[in-house]
Amino acid sequence: MRRMVMAGVATVTLLAAIGGTALAAGYANPQFLVETDWLIRHLNDRDLRIIDMRDRLEEYAAGHIPGAVYLAVNQIRRALKEPGFVIPPDYELEEILGQLGITGETMVVAYDDQGGLNASRLFYTLGYAGHGKMALLNGGLTKWVAEGRSLAIEVSRVAKTVYRVHPDTGRVASGRWIAANLGKPNLALVDARSPKEFRGEDVRAKRGGHIPGAANIEWTQNLTADKTFKSADELLNLYEKAGVTKDKTTVTYCQTMHRASLSYFALRLLGYPDVRGYDRSWSEWGNDPALLVER
Amino acid sequence: MRRMVMAGVATVTLLAAIGGTALAAGYANPQFLVETDWLIRHLNDRDLRIIDMRDRLEEYAAGHIPGAVYLAVNQIRRALKEPGFVIPPDYELEEILGQLGITGETMVVAYDDQGGLNASRLFYTLGYAGHGKMALLNGGLTKWVAEGRSLAIEVSRVAKTVYRVHPDTGRVASGRWIAANLGKPNLALVDARSPKEFRGEDVRAKRGGHIPGAANIEWTQNLTADKTFKSADELLNLYEKAGVTKDKTTVTYCQTMHRASLSYFALRLLGYPDVRGYDRSWSEWGNDPALLVER
Repeated sequence: MRRMVMAGVATVTLLAAIGGTALAAGYANPQFLVETDWLIRHLNDRDLRIIDMRDRLEEYAAGHIPGAVYLAVNQIRRALKEPGFVIPPDYELEEILGQLGITGETMVVAYDDQGGLNASRLFYTLGYAGHGKMALLNGGLTKWVAEGRSLAIEVSRVAKTVYRVHPDTGRVASGRWIAANLGKPNLALVDARSPKEFRGEDVRAKRGGHIPGAANIEWTQNLTADKTFKSADELLNLYEKAGVTKDKTTVTYCQTMHRASLSYFALRLLGYPDVRGYDRSWSEWGNDPALLVER
Repeated sequence: MRRMVMAGVATVTLLAAIGGTALAAGYANPQFLVETDWLIRHLNDRDLRIIDMRDRLEEYAAGHIPGAVYLAVNQIRRALKEPGFVIPPDYELEEILGQLGITGETMVVAYDDQGGLNASRLFYTLGYAGHGKMALLNGGLTKWVAEGRSLAIEVSRVAKTVYRVHPDTGRVASGRWIAANLGKPNLALVDARSPKEFRGEDVRAKRGGHIPGAANIEWTQNLTADKTFKSADELLNLYEKAGVTKDKTTVTYCQTMHRASLSYFALRLLGYPDVRGYDRSWSEWGNDPALLVER
């Protein structure tokens, strides 16, 4: 009983530390999304690392959120000889995360200028690495700049750390695993690509179409026009009406698990308990003749 | 005190269970190398998995050690778009090892017909995966056939298991880590390629040559003419006279960490306490202009 009370207190403290807007939006996991006013108040926190994940280093060099370090999305994925990418091996991931100067206790806040497209790939990767303290900046640099907040141009220097990965392989789905579970009522598949890719009209592999039974919810549907996340009610409605409910194991995919990382993030924000990313996505499924395709 | 006595007894039991030849050869870790007569006596052991790793599945289909399952070396490495290979991500490795029907308690014995060239890549991979019970068959199928032992042609069927990887990232070296430690007296580098590659006369990357300070001990030097491993004295002499001693952290490399896996195996057999494989090997080092090359 005492324990439950303590847990309650801890939760209240945690929620109070998070920016107001996210709380108001009613997400089950509000700690995964911070607001610009929260970030302003915490810019000098000792164990906070802000990560700029825009497409080009030049953009970072021209101005970034004060204290932010730069990370290219290609550093946290490995291009394979066959089409597609995979999460880097643990020993490479440890080096990359160590160069960001973070430990397992660091609160990592990532942003970009595409509503979190690149930043959510880091969120997905950190989830695999067993890192719990992570968030996206709602609206990213787009909102930050629109609000007229200051930018820094000096490159932030951080001391390299020794980072230990504690892989949570349950955050990643393989094509073989999906194939073995196709058609089961407790599996939901979210296809985060465009409707044209989903229908097989825009073909980016040997075959066009989608994984049988998948729901097509394009990644951009998670966002509002100003590139912030839709409210919990709006997002839940979007997923639930497509049959993607919290009682199911949910797998998100796209062409390379880039766009699908944003959908993965949205589902975790909503508190879906078992969300997995299909790392090889359509790059594998569309090219493997042994796997069934629906059009 | 009681504990030490118990440990002594356990060791004696373990050693007694291992084939005579390997013991006679005096390796510090004789459990990593089993002899054909040991394997014959243990063919029906419940928690033993024999793995045929010859180059082609057709060879396995034509005849293999009774009970052996087949595994292609390409299943346990991932070809990158840039040159080279990496160990598969943990979630893929778990699936591959699960399909071999093994658990963390299974004794894995691997063989091929090249003195252990492919089998030692599995040994290296299993070491990374945190799997302790593993061995190579000394002399592999070459010795088995030379001794006139029986072969099976039926494909062995095993029940798929759920395998959990416990990554030991300390078994793998990155180019960046090597570069940061170059010239330190406690680092030894073993180049397992041919002398022509080592000297930069046979060039398989943008640049030829070797990592500064490396000792060239070609992988074949670990083996006798009949493709069994040389004795501990012979191997120790080979490495020690090149400055590769047990007090150092030792990194083995070649072009793709294939040949160097056999050297890695030999050093672990000898009981070198800190041996690491440079996964990307010369495929990375020879192609990265930021890394120093010696000729």
